[in-house]
Amino acid sequence: MGTVVTLGGQVGAAKLADGLYRLRGKDLAAIVNTGDDYEHLGLAFSPDLDTVLYTLGGIASASAGWEPEGETRAVQAMLRVLGGPEQPAIGDRSLATSLLRTQGLDDGRRLTEITLDFCRALGVGARILPMADERVRTHVLTDDGAVTFTEYFTELGCEPAVRGFQYAGVEEARLSDEVRDALLAPDLEAVIIGPANPYHAIRPILEVPGMKEMLRKRGAPVVAVTPLVGGKALKGSAGKMMRELGKEPSVRSIAGEYLRLIDGFVIDREDEIFAESVRSLGIAVRPTATVMRTIDDRVSLAQATLDFAAGIRATRVMEAE
Amino acid sequence: MGTVVTLGGQVGAAKLADGLYRLRGKDLAAIVNTGDDYEHLGLAFSPDLDTVLYTLGGIASASAGWEPEGETRAVQAMLRVLGGPEQPAIGDRSLATSLLRTQGLDDGRRLTEITLDFCRALGVGARILPMADERVRTHVLTDDGAVTFTEYFTELGCEPAVRGFQYAGVEEARLSDEVRDALLAPDLEAVIIGPANPYHAIRPILEVPGMKEMLRKRGAPVVAVTPLVGGKALKGSAGKMMRELGKEPSVRSIAGEYLRLIDGFVIDREDEIFAESVRSLGIAVRPTATVMRTIDDRVSLAQATLDFAAGIRATRVMEAE
Repeated sequence: MGTVVTLGGQVGAAKLADGLYRLRGKDLAAIVNTGDDYEHLGLAFSPDLDTVLYTLGGIASASAGWEPEGETRAVQAMLRVLGGPEQPAIGDRSLATSLLRTQGLDDGRRLTEITLDFCRALGVGARILPMADERVRTHVLTDDGAVTFTEYFTELGCEPAVRGFQYAGVEEARLSDEVRDALLAPDLEAVIIGPANPYHAIRPILEVPGMKEMLRKRGAPVVAVTPLVGGKALKGSAGKMMRELGKEPSVRSIAGEYLRLIDGFVIDREDEIFAESVRSLGIAVRPTATVMRTIDDRVSLAQATLDFAAGIRATRVMEAE
Repeated sequence: MGTVVTLGGQVGAAKLADGLYRLRGKDLAAIVNTGDDYEHLGLAFSPDLDTVLYTLGGIASASAGWEPEGETRAVQAMLRVLGGPEQPAIGDRSLATSLLRTQGLDDGRRLTEITLDFCRALGVGARILPMADERVRTHVLTDDGAVTFTEYFTELGCEPAVRGFQYAGVEEARLSDEVRDALLAPDLEAVIIGPANPYHAIRPILEVPGMKEMLRKRGAPVVAVTPLVGGKALKGSAGKMMRELGKEPSVRSIAGEYLRLIDGFVIDREDEIFAESVRSLGIAVRPTATVMRTIDDRVSLAQATLDFAAGIRATRVMEAE
């Protein structure tokens, strides 16, 4: 068994990363979206990094996977008393992560180093890697102009219709040594794009200059897992955004977003009717159960995805012979 | 009735300030020590300002007056999980105050403005004023060198013998417009030095260039309230420090610290035996009950102190006639 790289952001991708971590331990690297990061009260918040961190660290809330179990709101309550801002709401435990992150950045450390320190403190053997150390911010284009994803999500409640996305700063972002090392590992077995919103969780990662080429550098199969089941996102607003962007909210459209990048696509059994049309794009398809309610679900989906990638590898070898 | 200014830091002085506030409302200004302020995790902590703020705002803990009632430690617990620093320990509600203060300072606002905003948010009609907007830091001189008061208090547990104090930065500190306005009020009736450690709570205030002169500018009586009862500080380490500095831990020594500054000194009835020797320094003395267990105790001591100051004023008028 070789090493595995997964790409993602949001709770679904974090759950799949956890399944992969339970199967592969230190041989997993998770490259995580930082386009939804934001500054609030002078502190650096990285919601996607923290979601993966808490999930792999085994301390994520079962009901709100983006924050630690037992999260409380004492700081936020006192901010209110003192006339401070109400949004974005701060959780106490989550705040500790941001405090240490901010201090590390102020000390001139890279986001990657800080995140790997968190991994060590939480006993996470896998590498959780920001997609880049440079600041990238996803902006949502609406009819009233561009807003940061954080504003769109917290202040606007994902209400305005989405007309497009911009990834501010991504041209200046660089592949970190740690990301390169993970993707250049001689025994890289698969690159797995987690079930997450393609526009603001996955695309920012892919837009880092050199990332798409690097994903394919070792020739390991690139496999995506659908964030949509029956045309709807389990969490988040992928379906809504796709309709507003004039796209059919289906696994076929998601596959289209990853055209010429992925070799295989894991879809839910519920969407099996779309399998042929995705295959017609030159993408292998594996229908399976993709909804992860339990830890076992995470491991099963991770195993199915790894098996699928192994099958693609084997087919290639056969074709080459 | 005119306006009143009180000087202080620590819980005792905050309680007396609360008594004065209950009697005089918006006609009170509390000038507060910032020499014990510190930075931790990139945030600005002002323990003495916050103590007065919470106390006058009616949200101070009954058992730990330097923090809000119902304080919790979720952030600190998570800092521990993530390998962050253990000391100085952070309370969740207290952290909110530091977060907003830090953001205000980063935005270029003065500490005084930020503190007055907190007063408004908490409905505190009195003015709580930092002794200066510039950074002053009290250092404790020990046999092993100088340490900040925060290190002395939190990391060293007040263990090392005290050889002296330095107030770093105080030469560059300035009387703020708000402090000047309070002390130049035409109807200033009394300046009351609260019951607090003379070395690290009161002296830093007095060392701000021009402060001592300004306290006497309007000719209002300057009256101190003892922090020692029966040779011991109710809270804090004033008695210990005095012994280490080669001074008798008594109200006489405290009076000596304020020589040529105060007109009157409020001591506890328990220390009445020292009254004559304090009077021999040319300082009027008023023995009374100085221990503040209840809100009524605060108001009684405040009233007794104001009455004492009024008596000093009346005597002066008689002497002048």
